[in-house]
Amino acid sequence: MPNANPGDGAHPASCAHAYPLLIKQLLHTPLAVRPQQEIVYRDQVRMTYSTLRERIGRLAGALASLGVKAGDVVAVMDWDSHRYLESYFAVPMMGATLMTANVRLSPDQIAYTLDHSGASVVLVNADFLPSFEPLRERLPKLTAAVLIDDSGAMAMPEGFAGEYEQLLACASPEFVFGDFDENTVATTFYTTGTTGLPKGVYFTHRQIVLHTLATMGALTSASEQGRIHREDVYMPMTPMFHVHAWGIPYIATLLGVKQVYPGRYSPESLIELAVREKVTFSHGVPTLLSMVLSCPASEAADLRGWKIIVGGSALPHSLAQAALARGIDVFAGYGMSETCPVLTISQVGTISDGDPATDLDLRTRAGLPIPLVEVRIVDEQMRDVARDGNSSGEVVVRAPWLTQGYLGNPAASDALWAGGYLHTNDIGTIDGNGYLHITDRLKDVIKTGGEWVSSLELEDLISRHPAVGEVAVIGVSDARWGERPLPLVVLKPGESADLQSIRAHLGKYAANGVISRYAIPERVMFVEAIERTSVGKIDKKLLRARYRAGP
Amino acid sequence: MPNANPGDGAHPASCAHAYPLLIKQLLHTPLAVRPQQEIVYRDQVRMTYSTLRERIGRLAGALASLGVKAGDVVAVMDWDSHRYLESYFAVPMMGATLMTANVRLSPDQIAYTLDHSGASVVLVNADFLPSFEPLRERLPKLTAAVLIDDSGAMAMPEGFAGEYEQLLACASPEFVFGDFDENTVATTFYTTGTTGLPKGVYFTHRQIVLHTLATMGALTSASEQGRIHREDVYMPMTPMFHVHAWGIPYIATLLGVKQVYPGRYSPESLIELAVREKVTFSHGVPTLLSMVLSCPASEAADLRGWKIIVGGSALPHSLAQAALARGIDVFAGYGMSETCPVLTISQVGTISDGDPATDLDLRTRAGLPIPLVEVRIVDEQMRDVARDGNSSGEVVVRAPWLTQGYLGNPAASDALWAGGYLHTNDIGTIDGNGYLHITDRLKDVIKTGGEWVSSLELEDLISRHPAVGEVAVIGVSDARWGERPLPLVVLKPGESADLQSIRAHLGKYAANGVISRYAIPERVMFVEAIERTSVGKIDKKLLRARYRAGP
Repeated sequence: MPNANPGDGAHPASCAHAYPLLIKQLLHTPLAVRPQQEIVYRDQVRMTYSTLRERIGRLAGALASLGVKAGDVVAVMDWDSHRYLESYFAVPMMGATLMTANVRLSPDQIAYTLDHSGASVVLVNADFLPSFEPLRERLPKLTAAVLIDDSGAMAMPEGFAGEYEQLLACASPEFVFGDFDENTVATTFYTTGTTGLPKGVYFTHRQIVLHTLATMGALTSASEQGRIHREDVYMPMTPMFHVHAWGIPYIATLLGVKQVYPGRYSPESLIELAVREKVTFSHGVPTLLSMVLSCPASEAADLRGWKIIVGGSALPHSLAQAALARGIDVFAGYGMSETCPVLTISQVGTISDGDPATDLDLRTRAGLPIPLVEVRIVDEQMRDVARDGNSSGEVVVRAPWLTQGYLGNPAASDALWAGGYLHTNDIGTIDGNGYLHITDRLKDVIKTGGEWVSSLELEDLISRHPAVGEVAVIGVSDARWGERPLPLVVLKPGESADLQSIRAHLGKYAANGVISRYAIPERVMFVEAIERTSVGKIDKKLLRARYRAGP
Repeated sequence: MPNANPGDGAHPASCAHAYPLLIKQLLHTPLAVRPQQEIVYRDQVRMTYSTLRERIGRLAGALASLGVKAGDVVAVMDWDSHRYLESYFAVPMMGATLMTANVRLSPDQIAYTLDHSGASVVLVNADFLPSFEPLRERLPKLTAAVLIDDSGAMAMPEGFAGEYEQLLACASPEFVFGDFDENTVATTFYTTGTTGLPKGVYFTHRQIVLHTLATMGALTSASEQGRIHREDVYMPMTPMFHVHAWGIPYIATLLGVKQVYPGRYSPESLIELAVREKVTFSHGVPTLLSMVLSCPASEAADLRGWKIIVGGSALPHSLAQAALARGIDVFAGYGMSETCPVLTISQVGTISDGDPATDLDLRTRAGLPIPLVEVRIVDEQMRDVARDGNSSGEVVVRAPWLTQGYLGNPAASDALWAGGYLHTNDIGTIDGNGYLHITDRLKDVIKTGGEWVSSLELEDLISRHPAVGEVAVIGVSDARWGERPLPLVVLKPGESADLQSIRAHLGKYAANGVISRYAIPERVMFVEAIERTSVGKIDKKLLRARYRAGP
């Protein structure tokens, strides 16, 4: 084989018939196999995959007529809809970047993210006009805005290029989607921490295609519990502006399943749609699941067999139990904006051996790595800790679909990728069965005498004391141990407790091995109230600033 | 966003934390999740995935000690074994190319393919020594040979560097597998047509990883029938030298399922292993399935729930029926050496509506395209024919895992990829549900008056005539129609039939619309015997050469 040694690094034919991993390639199978499958938007739209494909062509044509070309950024401000699904495909398939605007941010932050993304066109649902219109003068790069009007009867506001449906009606479905480099950026959106400006993450066509294949592989290969398949009916319950609704709309499309888009969320409308359209597969944050389960409309509804992946925050045992009691197949997943997002999924598999307590516990864990994901738990020198379910460290990962940095923020990008792994800033353990369990946020963990104490775990245990109403645990400086835990406790009205009572309460857990003796604090602050952020989370940053040097 | 427009084609961070699609990445999940899962070789070896990983390291170390480096080619001549699985990973993970030698070829052809591949090291099972040893002088590039000795007691033959197990025992499991270009060739092997020299195809790391993900996605996402999952037990029944046993060992490893390798095939040993190890998932050619079903050992065996994908040749209705009657979940797949191989899989899904005849028919078809595969049926001008289940044309495909050509054979490579699609040389139809049905080989189809007549279909129908023992249909030149079908018929002993009887028989099918009237031949040749090739296929090339100009 003188001219073509396959391993000599010169692959003359390798690229001749290259097949780039582009989002458009996800459409081949469903269009060939399920052209008549349904896509439903509330009670307003019922269309087929064939129509989806036509409308993707029309949307690209309409955007092109507004001047959008490869490399441009198109932003969307909409509720979860078939239109959002169309933009998931049409915008990247043109070679442009889809910017999914977080409509829950403050107007200031929305303006910042739209401008920072470089969006030249924005599609705006009429519901967001009151917040959008005052921003326009702060968006000098914006050349066109498209109105999305569910009513179909609204007068065109000034400065809009047209209404979404009218523009699609005027465009041809025959837009030609060519091939280009699979490393072209397909999507971007902004994460919001508790401090600083929102940070933009971005994902390429290749990354989204690989995330779609690997996440689908993990979700479909379960033997029974948590098994997704081609006869499922899908409805998202996380907003489509947030990490592409966990990328599941791409998976649902590739699978060719019926898809149901709920518009603006309310627990009642989600229940109603789920029952009417026979939804079998969703995903959401714990708060939303809790609202869905507790709303009056859910009482009479038959929710059996509804598979719901919970992520975004830890899935509490109590919520998982409540869902299981309704016949919902609930289980956790883990990931973040920076990771496209899925890293692990907590299907139980055969490990629980039918024991309900183990089953419940496994469902609430972060779970097992999906294909191609390398998860490590490391100490501060990036050395692996033991996979014994007990040794904790920071969760760092590699996978083919991680953001390569934050847009225009090299310092934050370098910190994210220190040592060649993406740093999740989460603390976790891995047990002998490979289950990842997230125990704390890195910034909230307390480092004492070379050991780590989980503030989340201490808060959970102290909150079980009968007199405790609210509790926050922070780490404060300590000359001997580096840091020590300091609980801030709000007592229930009319109740009383003292340091010894709290210590005795925790001592019981230490005796059982639930926590270490060194996790029991020497001091407790009894306070009137605990400061929270605008979204209701305990403001540990503020508490630490106030108490770091000791009370 | 002045410095990092995500769509401007300049992606400064895109490659900073690149994750190449390398075969080693398939090991992350199973090693994290199923380190104690079993791999079984006959009744000789029972080891864990952890041990597999160690032995992959040891094999790489042993090969390195024999001088193998990135870019080199390592050939294997072995039966289906854990060793073959180890070489699937270790050789490509070193950056070398695995050449899987077809041990069923003639010694001449084996020598040609080993030499043409450029193999510098070969691992040879002792069973093949009689054919291998005389070849050595024709392999000037070979620098080392490794003996595989299942008996563990054989004296080392002259000119061998050592025995497989001994070399592994001396090597360290700590071989460092670095990152490299995902377009590095991982595997190569040779296809054998009925004419000419064997042709080498080759696949890169990227291609094998993508084939693994997409095929796994198709096999796991079935709602019920044909569903593969993480609790399956896998055993190949196609040899591992042939297209990586359809790539399924890579899928089985990624899924973390128990794997069973049967060594040299016999119907009895396959049945015995399948029953003993509780095998639930296999794949094979029709002939092997037929042998397994008809061997005496199978009579008493409970084969219910065994999922078997059949490919390589069309799955006959009668064989599918026989398998279903034993409780086997049998279904077809379609692909070829050039396509890595999987293109379509024929899971029934919800289309049959429970009708057994439809169910049977769908199981025997080539099936539905797996994710990322674009299948077209085209006429000679590469125009798409209608997807009506009736209009036929050549099957051409695009997918991310197709061979980019034949090694050192630019003319054949150009023909393979004419028009930017890989030409399968198969004739087929696609129906409204997306089902691909292969009706003939392109070279065997008869082109008459601008229409195509399937020689396979005519043979099937004529063989149902009560007097017909064997039949072959070829196309012969015709001044008016271009070509006309000519059946060569061997009558059953003691039976008689004439042209009119054959025509009347076919006329019934034409009346029912099964075939067109113009497919009914005007002539039939009654012959003593029909020439076959060395592997038992009808030698149409010879028949055409003899009769092309007319009888």
